[in-house]
Amino acid sequence: MVERIDVGILGATGVVGQHFVSLLAEHPWFRLTWIAASDRSAGRRYAEIPWRIVPPRPTFADDLVISRVEPDAAPSLVFSALDAAVAGEAETAFARAGRLVISNARNHRMDPLVPLLIPEVNPDHLKLLSQQRHAYEWDGGIITNPNCSTVFLTMALAALRPFRPQRVLVTTLQALSGAGYPGVPALDAVGNVIPFIAGEEQKMETEPLKLLGTLTEDGIENAGIIISAQATRVPVADGHTVAMSVLLGQDAAVQEIRAAFESWTGVPQQLGLPTAPARPLVYVDADDRPQPKLDVMRDGGMAVTIGRLRRCPLFTCKFVVLGHNTIRGAAGAALLNAELAHATGALKRDVVQRKQSKLSV
Amino acid sequence: MVERIDVGILGATGVVGQHFVSLLAEHPWFRLTWIAASDRSAGRRYAEIPWRIVPPRPTFADDLVISRVEPDAAPSLVFSALDAAVAGEAETAFARAGRLVISNARNHRMDPLVPLLIPEVNPDHLKLLSQQRHAYEWDGGIITNPNCSTVFLTMALAALRPFRPQRVLVTTLQALSGAGYPGVPALDAVGNVIPFIAGEEQKMETEPLKLLGTLTEDGIENAGIIISAQATRVPVADGHTVAMSVLLGQDAAVQEIRAAFESWTGVPQQLGLPTAPARPLVYVDADDRPQPKLDVMRDGGMAVTIGRLRRCPLFTCKFVVLGHNTIRGAAGAALLNAELAHATGALKRDVVQRKQSKLSV
Amino acid sequence: MVERIDVGILGATGVVGQHFVSLLAEHPWFRLTWIAASDRSAGRRYAEIPWRIVPPRPTFADDLVISRVEPDAAPSLVFSALDAAVAGEAETAFARAGRLVISNARNHRMDPLVPLLIPEVNPDHLKLLSQQRHAYEWDGGIITNPNCSTVFLTMALAALRPFRPQRVLVTTLQALSGAGYPGVPALDAVGNVIPFIAGEEQKMETEPLKLLGTLTEDGIENAGIIISAQATRVPVADGHTVAMSVLLGQDAAVQEIRAAFESWTGVPQQLGLPTAPARPLVYVDADDRPQPKLDVMRDGGMAVTIGRLRRCPLFTCKFVVLGHNTIRGAAGAALLNAELAHATGALKRDVVQRKQSKLSV
Amino acid sequence: MVERIDVGILGATGVVGQHFVSLLAEHPWFRLTWIAASDRSAGRRYAEIPWRIVPPRPTFADDLVISRVEPDAAPSLVFSALDAAVAGEAETAFARAGRLVISNARNHRMDPLVPLLIPEVNPDHLKLLSQQRHAYEWDGGIITNPNCSTVFLTMALAALRPFRPQRVLVTTLQALSGAGYPGVPALDAVGNVIPFIAGEEQKMETEPLKLLGTLTEDGIENAGIIISAQATRVPVADGHTVAMSVLLGQDAAVQEIRAAFESWTGVPQQLGLPTAPARPLVYVDADDRPQPKLDVMRDGGMAVTIGRLRRCPLFTCKFVVLGHNTIRGAAGAALLNAELAHATGALKRDVVQRKQSKLSV
Repeated sequence: MVERIDVGILGATGVVGQHFVSLLAEHPWFRLTWIAASDRSAGRRYAEIPWRIVPPRPTFADDLVISRVEPDAAPSLVFSALDAAVAGEAETAFARAGRLVISNARNHRMDPLVPLLIPEVNPDHLKLLSQQRHAYEWDGGIITNPNCSTVFLTMALAALRPFRPQRVLVTTLQALSGAGYPGVPALDAVGNVIPFIAGEEQKMETEPLKLLGTLTEDGIENAGIIISAQATRVPVADGHTVAMSVLLGQDAAVQEIRAAFESWTGVPQQLGLPTAPARPLVYVDADDRPQPKLDVMRDGGMAVTIGRLRRCPLFTCKFVVLGHNTIRGAAGAALLNAELAHATGALKRDVVQRKQSKLSV
Repeated sequence: MVERIDVGILGATGVVGQHFVSLLAEHPWFRLTWIAASDRSAGRRYAEIPWRIVPPRPTFADDLVISRVEPDAAPSLVFSALDAAVAGEAETAFARAGRLVISNARNHRMDPLVPLLIPEVNPDHLKLLSQQRHAYEWDGGIITNPNCSTVFLTMALAALRPFRPQRVLVTTLQALSGAGYPGVPALDAVGNVIPFIAGEEQKMETEPLKLLGTLTEDGIENAGIIISAQATRVPVADGHTVAMSVLLGQDAAVQEIRAAFESWTGVPQQLGLPTAPARPLVYVDADDRPQPKLDVMRDGGMAVTIGRLRRCPLFTCKFVVLGHNTIRGAAGAALLNAELAHATGALKRDVVQRKQSKLSV
Repeated sequence: MVERIDVGILGATGVVGQHFVSLLAEHPWFRLTWIAASDRSAGRRYAEIPWRIVPPRPTFADDLVISRVEPDAAPSLVFSALDAAVAGEAETAFARAGRLVISNARNHRMDPLVPLLIPEVNPDHLKLLSQQRHAYEWDGGIITNPNCSTVFLTMALAALRPFRPQRVLVTTLQALSGAGYPGVPALDAVGNVIPFIAGEEQKMETEPLKLLGTLTEDGIENAGIIISAQATRVPVADGHTVAMSVLLGQDAAVQEIRAAFESWTGVPQQLGLPTAPARPLVYVDADDRPQPKLDVMRDGGMAVTIGRLRRCPLFTCKFVVLGHNTIRGAAGAALLNAELAHATGALKRDVVQRKQSKLSV
Repeated sequence: MVERIDVGILGATGVVGQHFVSLLAEHPWFRLTWIAASDRSAGRRYAEIPWRIVPPRPTFADDLVISRVEPDAAPSLVFSALDAAVAGEAETAFARAGRLVISNARNHRMDPLVPLLIPEVNPDHLKLLSQQRHAYEWDGGIITNPNCSTVFLTMALAALRPFRPQRVLVTTLQALSGAGYPGVPALDAVGNVIPFIAGEEQKMETEPLKLLGTLTEDGIENAGIIISAQATRVPVADGHTVAMSVLLGQDAAVQEIRAAFESWTGVPQQLGLPTAPARPLVYVDADDRPQPKLDVMRDGGMAVTIGRLRRCPLFTCKFVVLGHNTIRGAAGAALLNAELAHATGALKRDVVQRKQSKLSV
C-alpha cells in the first residue's frame, strides 16, 4: 500500500462527524490523525465521546485527543462537519492557513468560487478551486457537498439530463438523523410528522441549479430548472425519501427513463474511487419500494435507490428516490469529493503548490 | 328530545365500524340498534369484539348481538364500513331491500347515479338519490363519502373555488389506521416509510373531479382539474398529512388564499348539523404545523387543519392539510352525510316514499 | 357556583405545567390567575408559548402574562411544576412568603415534615403540614406528590395492604413525556429502548415506604417493605407501564387479590373530589392489557389500569399496572392533593391562620 | 477450502428462514442447496419471495426453487424455521427419513431425548442425540435451540454458575421481529407496549432449567433454579432487552460478577466455530446501555451485551441483557448448534452411521 495521506475532521463529535470517523476507519488513501470539536469537548479522548450512530464505533480513533477548531496543528486535508453557526468563519480560517477543507456545511456552498460537488454529477466544477484560491489568495481552499436531500434529487435529475428536466415538484420525508444530535425531541417525533425543516426547502430549490449548471469562463451558469420543494420530518432514523414529479423538455417513455436511471454512471465509477458505489442509482422493481428500512444501506449507504417510476398526469413522470442522508447525503458525499480531488490531482496540487491552476478531470 | 331514528352498521367490528359506534354513542338524532359483520363475528355480543381505537369503548352497544350482513332485520338507515371485497354486492342488496345505505366503501362512489358527498362541498349532489332510486328501481339507496385523503384535499380545493383551481400536485403521508386492522405489519411500519398504498393515488386523482363537479340534468359534470398524487404510509396512528401545490386559474395573494380557507363554510354549519365542526378548515399560523399529534383531534376529529401556506415557484401556492382519516375521512364523513340527508328531508322521503323526487338542499 | 380560589402555576410552560393549565381550564374550585416560568419566558403572553401536549390548548389562559418565579404577586395557592434544579429554593421561598405550594418536584418529597401524598393512599399525612409550618416558621407550606412511576406502584400496593406486601420487584417501561421537553432526543428513542432513567429507581425504592408509612407523633414511620426497581424508557408518548412481582405477608388467592384491586377506593372518592376518578384502580380482564394506547386516558387519565394478575413462581403474585405519567403521575396528582387539602379544610386554615394545627381527614 | 456440506432450510420464506439464508450466504462449511416452505410458496423461485429483514438479500439463493416440506429430496442436514403449528410432525418425519434437523421451533425442545442447546452453555447435551436416535429408531435426529429470550437470560446465568444462581426475576422488552411476519399489527405496536406474548413466559420459566441441567445416565437433571418471567412487546425492530434480578447461592461482589461475565467463554470460542462471537457476553460500561439500536448487531448479532450491573435490594444483583432475537436468538443459534455438531463429529456420525453412540465434546 502506498503511504496514506493524513487527514483531520472538524466537528468530529456530532452525527456527521462520527460517520466521517466510521468511513475513514479503513480507508485506503486517507489516515485520520487529527480531530477537532467545540471547546466543550476539546482535550478529551475520542473514546470518551458517546457514540450515536448505528455503524459500530471503530477503535482506531479512541486515543485521538480532541483539538480546538484551530488550524495550527491540523493536517493539510480536513473534513468539516461543523455546525453552520461556526462553519463559515472557521472554514475560511483553515483555507487561509493552507488547508483544503472538504465541507459538509452549508455556509460556502453558494459562493460562486466554491465548488459544490457531486462527483457523478459535476466533477468538472472542481476546476473552480484554482480560481477560488487565486481570487481569495488562499493557500488552501474549500470544496463543498450539497444539502442531503439535494444530493438525492440532483442525482436523479442528472440521470435525466438527456431529456432536459425543466420543472420539478419534490416532497421529502426526511429522517431524524438529518437534524443531528440531540436534534428533534422525541415527543415531537414519535408517531408524528413535522411538515417543516428550517432552510431545507430553499436549499433544495437553489443548490441543484448550481450543481446542474455549466462551468464557463465566468464561473457557473445555473441550470434553467424551476424546483418547488416541500420538506417534512418523519420518525425514521436514517434515510430520506424523496417523491418527485418532473417535467422533461424532451418527452420520453417510462422505459427510456428507467433505462437512463439504470445506466447512469460517472467519473467516480470510471476512476474506481474507494467510496464510489458500483452504481450510483439502483432501480428497484417493486410497487412498495424504496423503503428506508430495506434500501438505505445499499452499497454501504452510497447508492441511491429509485422506484415507482410512472407517468405523471401533470408533468412527464413521477418516481420516488431514497438515500442515506448522513452517508451519501453528508459524510460519504464529502469523502467522495476528497477522493475525486485526490484522484484527479487537485488535492496534491492544491496543497503543495497553489499557483498551478490547470485541473483536468 | 324528539324520537331518534333507528340505525344500523354494516362492518361494525373493524376500525371504521368502531368509530361509527363511538360517534353514535350519544347522537341526538340516531339510535344504534343493529350491527352486522362477517359470518366469523355473527352471533357474538359486541362487547366480545376487541376494541382497537383510541376513543374509549362506549358501553351502550355491549349487548347488541352481531347479525349477518343481510337486510331482513336491519333498520331503514344503515352505515356501511364494509370491506370493498364485499361492499359492492352487499350494499346493493340493502338498497334493493329498501334501506338507505350511507357508505364509506369505495365500490359505488364513481357510479354516476350515486352521490359522492362532502356536505360542505357539494350538498346539492344529494339530489342524485332520486334519480338513482328511479333508475335502479330501488326502494332504498346508496350515498357515499370519498376516500379519506380525497376528503382533505377536496375540502381545501373547494375553499379555493373562487380562484378556480386547475392543477394540483399532492403528496400524502398517511396514517396506519387507514389500512384497517390488522392492516400494515409492524415490521414494515416502525421506523419506516412505505411509498405506496394500493389504489389510493387513483382515487385522489379521480374522486375530487366528481366532488367538485356540477350537477346538471344529465348528472354530474366533472370539474376540469388535473390532479397528480403520490401516496406514502408513515408510522403515525391517526391523521393523514397532505402536501399540496395548486395552480389557480385566477391569481391570488397569499393573504387572499388564507382568507378563503378561514372564511369557508357550508351547509352543515348553516344547518347546525350535530357532527359538523364549527369551521371545516382551520388555519394554524405556525411554521411547523399542522402535525398529526397536535391537530388531528381538532373539533372531535371533524375539523381539517391547514398550515404553511406560501407561494409555489411552479404553481400559485403550496400548503399542508391534515385531517383525521378514520373520523373526518371515514366514519364522521358518512355520519355527516346522513345528517345532511336527514336535515334536508332526503332521509325521510327516501325511506318512506320513494316516488317523491324533488330534493332541495 | 361558589367563588373560586385564585391559584398560580410555577413552571407553567413545560409539559407538566401545560397539563396544569389544561386541568384547571374548567375547574369548579380553582381559578388560574397567575403563571410563572423561567426568566427566558417571563413577560410573554401564555399564548406565545408553543403547546406540546395532546389535550388541546385552552384559550382561557392566553392572555395571562408570564411572571418571574417570585412570590410577590402570586396567589395564596400555587402549583409547582418547576424543574428540580430550581424547585428546592424557589418553593421554600414561596412557603416562607405565605404561599401553599402544591409541588410535583422531587426536592422536598423526603423531608420528614413535608407531606408526600396520594389522596387515596395516605390522606392523613396531610396533618404534617401543621408541624411543618410550626417547625419552619412558615406562613405557607409545601405539599408534594410522588414520582410518576411511584404513584402507580404505590396505588397497587395500597390496595394490597390487607395482605401486607413485603417484597416488590418492579420493572417500568416509561413514556417519553416523563422526561419533559425537549427531553429525550428522537434519535435515542425511535425504535429503541433506553434501560436507564437518572434517579428514577432510587425514587421508586424509597418514596413508597414513606407513602405507605404510618403517621405517628414523631412523624412518618416508614413501611417495612423492600422494593427493587429497574426503569427503562420506551418510545411511547404517554403512559408508564409497570410490571410488578409482590410477596405478600399473608397469602391470598388470585381472586381475592383481584377483588382487593377492584374494590379499593379512598377519601377522594368518598368526598367526591372534582378530579378524583370513579375508581382509582380498574382491572381489565384481557390477556394483553393494560396498553398505553388503549388505557392511558381512562377516566381522564386519573384512573390507573391493572391487568395480567397471576401467580408468581417466586413471590405471591405478579401483575401489570399502567398510569398516565403526566396526569395521574404529575399534574393531576398535585391537583388532587390540592383538592384534598381544600375539602378537608387544610387549605383554608393553612393559608389564613397558621396556628391552627388540628386537621382531620 | 474443503468441500462444503449440502444443507437445506425448512420454512425458508419467513423472518427466521431469511436469516438462515443470509447467514449461510458465505458459510465456510455449509452450502445451501435446498429450501422448502408451505405449499403456498412451493414451486416459486426464492427471488420471488419478498425480502423482509435488514441484512441485504444475498443473490446466491435467487434461483433455488422452493420445495414442499417433504424429506425426499432434502439434504442430510436441514435447518428448521417452521412455524410451531407444523414443525412437530414435519421435523419428526425428516428425522425418521434420516435427516438431522437443527430446529428453531419449540415443539421438540422439552423432549427429554432432544438436545436443547446453547453451545457455550451445555455442549455436552449433544450426547443425547445418540440416545434419541436409538430410542426413536431414527436414522436422522433433532437438535433444538431455545426460545429467543431464553437464550439471552440463560447465557447470563451460565456465566454466573460459579456463584450458583437460585432465583431469577426477569422482565423482557421484546422486539417485533420475534413475532415473525406479518406478526404484530402496526396499530398495536406504534407508540405502544403490549404486556403479553403468548407462551413466552412459560418458555423462559422452564427451558433454562433444562439448558443449565446436568447430563446423567438417565438424561438431563434440571437445574434447581426458580424463574419468574414477565414478557412485553415494544416497538423495536430487532433486539430483546432483558432485565434480570438474580439471587446467587454464593454471594459475590459486583466486580466479581462483572468479571464472570467478561471472562466467560465456551466450546465455540475454543473450537473457533465460524459463527461464534469472539466473546459471547460483552459488558458495556455506560449507564444507559445496552440499547437495541447501538448494541444489537455486536459481532454480527451473535454477541450478547450486558450492562447496568448493580446490587439488588432483594436479591444479589440486577443487570440488563440484550441480544439479537432473530440471529443469536434463532437462526444464528441453530447455525452455531450445527457447527458444534459438525466440529465435534456428531454431524458426520449421525448422518452416516446411526449406531455409533459415543460423542465427546
